[in-house]
Amino acid sequence: MAKTPETEHPVKAVGYAAHDTTGVLTPFKFSRRATGEKDVRLKVLYCGICHSDLHCAKNDWGITSYPIVPGHEIVGEVTEVGRGVSKFKVGDIVGVGCIVGSCHSCGACTNDLEQYCPKQIQTYGFPYYDGTITRGGYSDHLVTDEHFVLRWPKTLPLDAGAPLLCAGITTYSPLKHYGLDKPGMSIGVVGLGGLGHVAVKMAKAFGAHVTVISTSPAKKKEAIEVLGAENFLNSKDAEEMQAAAFSLDGIIDTVSAAHAIVPLIQCLKPDGKLVMVGIPDKPVDLAVHTLIMGRKIVAGSAMGGLKETQEMLDFSAKHNITADIEVVPIDYLNTAMERLAKGDVRYRFVIDVAKSLKTE
Amino acid sequence: MAKTPETEHPVKAVGYAAHDTTGVLTPFKFSRRATGEKDVRLKVLYCGICHSDLHCAKNDWGITSYPIVPGHEIVGEVTEVGRGVSKFKVGDIVGVGCIVGSCHSCGACTNDLEQYCPKQIQTYGFPYYDGTITRGGYSDHLVTDEHFVLRWPKTLPLDAGAPLLCAGITTYSPLKHYGLDKPGMSIGVVGLGGLGHVAVKMAKAFGAHVTVISTSPAKKKEAIEVLGAENFLNSKDAEEMQAAAFSLDGIIDTVSAAHAIVPLIQCLKPDGKLVMVGIPDKPVDLAVHTLIMGRKIVAGSAMGGLKETQEMLDFSAKHNITADIEVVPIDYLNTAMERLAKGDVRYRFVIDVAKSLKTE
Repeated sequence: MAKTPETEHPVKAVGYAAHDTTGVLTPFKFSRRATGEKDVRLKVLYCGICHSDLHCAKNDWGITSYPIVPGHEIVGEVTEVGRGVSKFKVGDIVGVGCIVGSCHSCGACTNDLEQYCPKQIQTYGFPYYDGTITRGGYSDHLVTDEHFVLRWPKTLPLDAGAPLLCAGITTYSPLKHYGLDKPGMSIGVVGLGGLGHVAVKMAKAFGAHVTVISTSPAKKKEAIEVLGAENFLNSKDAEEMQAAAFSLDGIIDTVSAAHAIVPLIQCLKPDGKLVMVGIPDKPVDLAVHTLIMGRKIVAGSAMGGLKETQEMLDFSAKHNITADIEVVPIDYLNTAMERLAKGDVRYRFVIDVAKSLKTE
Repeated sequence: MAKTPETEHPVKAVGYAAHDTTGVLTPFKFSRRATGEKDVRLKVLYCGICHSDLHCAKNDWGITSYPIVPGHEIVGEVTEVGRGVSKFKVGDIVGVGCIVGSCHSCGACTNDLEQYCPKQIQTYGFPYYDGTITRGGYSDHLVTDEHFVLRWPKTLPLDAGAPLLCAGITTYSPLKHYGLDKPGMSIGVVGLGGLGHVAVKMAKAFGAHVTVISTSPAKKKEAIEVLGAENFLNSKDAEEMQAAAFSLDGIIDTVSAAHAIVPLIQCLKPDGKLVMVGIPDKPVDLAVHTLIMGRKIVAGSAMGGLKETQEMLDFSAKHNITADIEVVPIDYLNTAMERLAKGDVRYRFVIDVAKSLKTE
């Protein structure tokens, strides 16, 4: 008999999967592998809902193979460890983020940049070493190579910390890598959503003077009064943008809709850096002279490596950085996805998996 | 009587100027200021013809005010120095490049990056401190603040070295600044013209493995056999470009016509850098995911500061780097411009000003 998701591995698992491009998520029975030599088995406690989960559930990027169990902002408790596991023991609280495998030998891997390994295995929807498809944190438990498991800092909340595993590292890494982490710098954050609101907190923790740039003037009050940004720019107001010319050392652009980047480049000082962490679905227009006059750069950045993700979690615990979240039961998933699509959440849904997922 | 170019200053000068958008250059009488405290007066010996000269003569960028005397690749002999000049004496061979003034107090200026000073004064067509318009090296002599005058290395040829003052520094500076100067790196050079052929020589001198990328397969032989590039890619051949994916540490893109940059980004390794030094007249398409998957950057770079330009001249002398040139008399200017517009020069025209400009 052909192996099915339910029979391909020895350990029963349950979760929520999307089965077609409607993206509707329904209860799903599948299986997980036995705990290998270097594996950590964990009971999922919380899992954040990332915008990527929605894109993948609906196959917006054309790379989804169904059924798909999303979720890559996972906090759990270790229930079993393989004989070769040295970093974790039963009862530890741990995190699993976007990646669960890589080649360990390429230039990226040997420089702790697993996120750029061409053979990286993402947490859901990717073929694992054994050929079976990875399934994410919208599920009762996970089995993960310890290299891809993070220690959870004692003081970091489990629910509000979960989104840091994607939104946190995606904004922390470029601030560090591109030298935008120096106290006193002026940093712009474009888009005030799941990534953007964490970017503001990270930049503030580094000591930056933060300017939120958004198409929604309604977000000004929140950006300044709640998140503590110093400035707000309405990106639709050409005069306001013009007045901000040459004022920023760097910008983290979290927007994944098509938008104009030239006005952003013009806000940069000489040697300023515009870092794109959202992926607009169409190419954006780049007027090259705006880069040349001031030696500016447009850069990309994806997530972060495991070493840096651990560093980010520790940094977040130290600086009390968490995501602003709305905790929901897992049977609220489809409503949450609809609200997320409309931007109706401040700023991240987190599923209380342990309390709400029926395992029978 | 209103001051005219011929009467606004005390010292008579002659040169070649364009008077309208035909860009036709004709003999032109004007005047130069008296030698100020910090000024160096020099007799022009050679002046390179840069593609920018052609754009400005024809007002392609919409910023030309006529009459305009182009030329910013100037080698000359000092004939007089102001009382406060310390770096030069009569008889010295010197160079003057793209810039002859700046504010000396902004962040750019105080970091030896005069090329990014918002108040920079370019060598021709810009209002000088006294309000008169700067006039370039298509002329018998120049008066320049010593800060903007370069020592000419003894072993560097005067004629074939002249284009380094623009083409040399424009390619040397980004290779250095963006860390693309490490021996053994794989460096791409897009476009094999005035800038591109010098970029190949600079990269080779830094110890790079050089790939020339061009739309003209006819240039392959020259790139490899004459300029010593290791590889050649036909950018119109999608298969050839695809095969080169993830192979380059950095690319210097010298092309000022509209062209596709995404296939170039795809040739970069993770953390690779595409540096634009040519200015396409229309925005180029940037597919952001190609930057994100590999943390790549698209950067701009303009010329170089005075300190770095001196360093580049000394480096060029040490490594025997010059431009490949065709020396022409000044009355050949309009023919040279027509040939330059067609790309019919290998690779830079240099005017033998001293021998061919009639000063009576």
